[in-house]
Amino acid sequence: MPEFRYDPLQKRWVIIATERQARPSDLHDSAKYNHLESCPFCEGNEETTPPEVWAIRAPDTPPNSPGWKVRVVPNKFPALKIEAGEIKKGVGYYDMMDGVGAHEVIIETPQHSIDLADLPLEQIKLVLLSYRERLRDLYKDPRFKYILIFKNHGKRAGASLAHAHSQVIALPIIPRNVNIKLSAAKKHYEEKERCLICDLIEQEKDTQTRVILSDNGFFAFAPYASRFPFEVFMAPIKHNYSFAEITDEDLERFSHFLRNILLRIKILLKNPPFNFVLSTSPNTQALPKFPDQWVTIKHDYHWHIDIIPRLVRIAGFEWGSGFYINPSTPELAAQYLREVTIE
Amino acid sequence: MPEFRYDPLQKRWVIIATERQARPSDLHDSAKYNHLESCPFCEGNEETTPPEVWAIRAPDTPPNSPGWKVRVVPNKFPALKIEAGEIKKGVGYYDMMDGVGAHEVIIETPQHSIDLADLPLEQIKLVLLSYRERLRDLYKDPRFKYILIFKNHGKRAGASLAHAHSQVIALPIIPRNVNIKLSAAKKHYEEKERCLICDLIEQEKDTQTRVILSDNGFFAFAPYASRFPFEVFMAPIKHNYSFAEITDEDLERFSHFLRNILLRIKILLKNPPFNFVLSTSPNTQALPKFPDQWVTIKHDYHWHIDIIPRLVRIAGFEWGSGFYINPSTPELAAQYLREVTIE
Repeated sequence: MPEFRYDPLQKRWVIIATERQARPSDLHDSAKYNHLESCPFCEGNEETTPPEVWAIRAPDTPPNSPGWKVRVVPNKFPALKIEAGEIKKGVGYYDMMDGVGAHEVIIETPQHSIDLADLPLEQIKLVLLSYRERLRDLYKDPRFKYILIFKNHGKRAGASLAHAHSQVIALPIIPRNVNIKLSAAKKHYEEKERCLICDLIEQEKDTQTRVILSDNGFFAFAPYASRFPFEVFMAPIKHNYSFAEITDEDLERFSHFLRNILLRIKILLKNPPFNFVLSTSPNTQALPKFPDQWVTIKHDYHWHIDIIPRLVRIAGFEWGSGFYINPSTPELAAQYLREVTIE
Repeated sequence: MPEFRYDPLQKRWVIIATERQARPSDLHDSAKYNHLESCPFCEGNEETTPPEVWAIRAPDTPPNSPGWKVRVVPNKFPALKIEAGEIKKGVGYYDMMDGVGAHEVIIETPQHSIDLADLPLEQIKLVLLSYRERLRDLYKDPRFKYILIFKNHGKRAGASLAHAHSQVIALPIIPRNVNIKLSAAKKHYEEKERCLICDLIEQEKDTQTRVILSDNGFFAFAPYASRFPFEVFMAPIKHNYSFAEITDEDLERFSHFLRNILLRIKILLKNPPFNFVLSTSPNTQALPKFPDQWVTIKHDYHWHIDIIPRLVRIAGFEWGSGFYINPSTPELAAQYLREVTIE
């Protein structure tokens, strides 16, 4: 059983995988893609993954057969287990919880070697639709307080398979970084009765120097305190606390917008490795346990996506301090990204 | 001038280097060592670094000439500048400060291709002595609230030059991760009148399963909630809040201990890339401005070193959540590290 473990000095939860034990010799190849005889995410290889939990497929095709457009399967080596118990206990000064949660893979296309950025618009929309539907479905389980959807592109960004995919991790606790943002947004709302992210978007529109793209109701900018070169923050201009609430019309608009941003990054930085993280509201259906925290969340939080190209390495300074040295200015990064020509 | 920039949503400071601007094409090679015709850290090449600020050298040799054992020079491309102004201002919802600070390199040996782990004991002691002396010297400047000493070993861990070296960054603010630890330690002391790290060491001694080495008054264990495989935490068993206060006798003892740990990691994991971070008290000579925070620091904080082998990659999950999935248990890591034979 995987375990959540809490460190009282670092005030941090860590997931410890107790089953698939990494031996020292296993760890040397983590920089490479897994070399498999055939890709488990390709159409026709459906039997090599755990049974699908959700898919967009032709109406006459049975589950776990060809004929799908987007397919969601449990991770074959899950960090967390949906059928775990709910043990929580102290271990001396430490705390421990069973590793309950869900860990799924969203296979973005049946085709092997095509990036999200290069998929047809309709297919990008189906990927985004799958994000929304997985959020809505997993929110029905009140054990899951937060659903993290993210994408690792390229092996240096942590992807272990080359076939385009996103990941979904449903967590029984709200992660520390999310809590920091939630509390900052809540405090801002309490003081001003305005959404902090709406305010930041307005300010970036006025300042202009960090704007990357404003189009179709969505807005992307290089954050003022970007940790990494060419980091991109994007969000809907109109306030919306949760990606689970996005309309079909906005999914359509956002697929245009996201494709545009992904192509700018791909062209300018020559298909860099990157991480892509969706930040959205916690599961409000688990609300009764946290009334204080979440009473204003529909007004104070605002979903957004961060894209972090993995061009520089994290070193001792960053681990030791928790802050970052960025060798380039966001103003210059935004200018470069603005000037890319997308046909 | 480098800038500190604060993000109100992430509650995080970032250092933005505004002078050495990274262009997109500069960023593709960050995984490689810089290839220079001759190494600026080698004996005989002293004129290729900025003038030394401190050195252990033969008494009859002038500064910036051969004849040294450990040499400390300003970083040629500093993230922060010692002669900066002290501008602090709001930028709309953001905050900005001049990038005042110091950024130094400790060259650990005049010889090019020898790791810290393989240096003679006497030389390891001189490296540790240089850590203590740089702390003591930089503490005289009350602008510097925290001095971070760290070491990146191997290019995957962020080292840009192969010649063994550590780095020193003097900061005008206490970094977020350090503040989290300081506040956890302070709260524990307020409740129990005991040091949290002393208590954790006692508990690990009792539990035994995560102990790596107890020797010569120092103690190393695999943290209960290790973020990474084979992470090591080490500290003096006897309470001491600051590495600047370490005695000559303890420097001698700790050089034995550190060498032992570094060799275990090197042998077991085949000379892996790693980051090494010294965590110590903030600059108490800057105390008058922060009486509340620091009144008990000599009792509640306890210096320690974390070593993080860089065997697995950080991906979207970690960026998005701020917590970590560790594919191995610290109990097994400790067992492997305990069982390494050091001649």
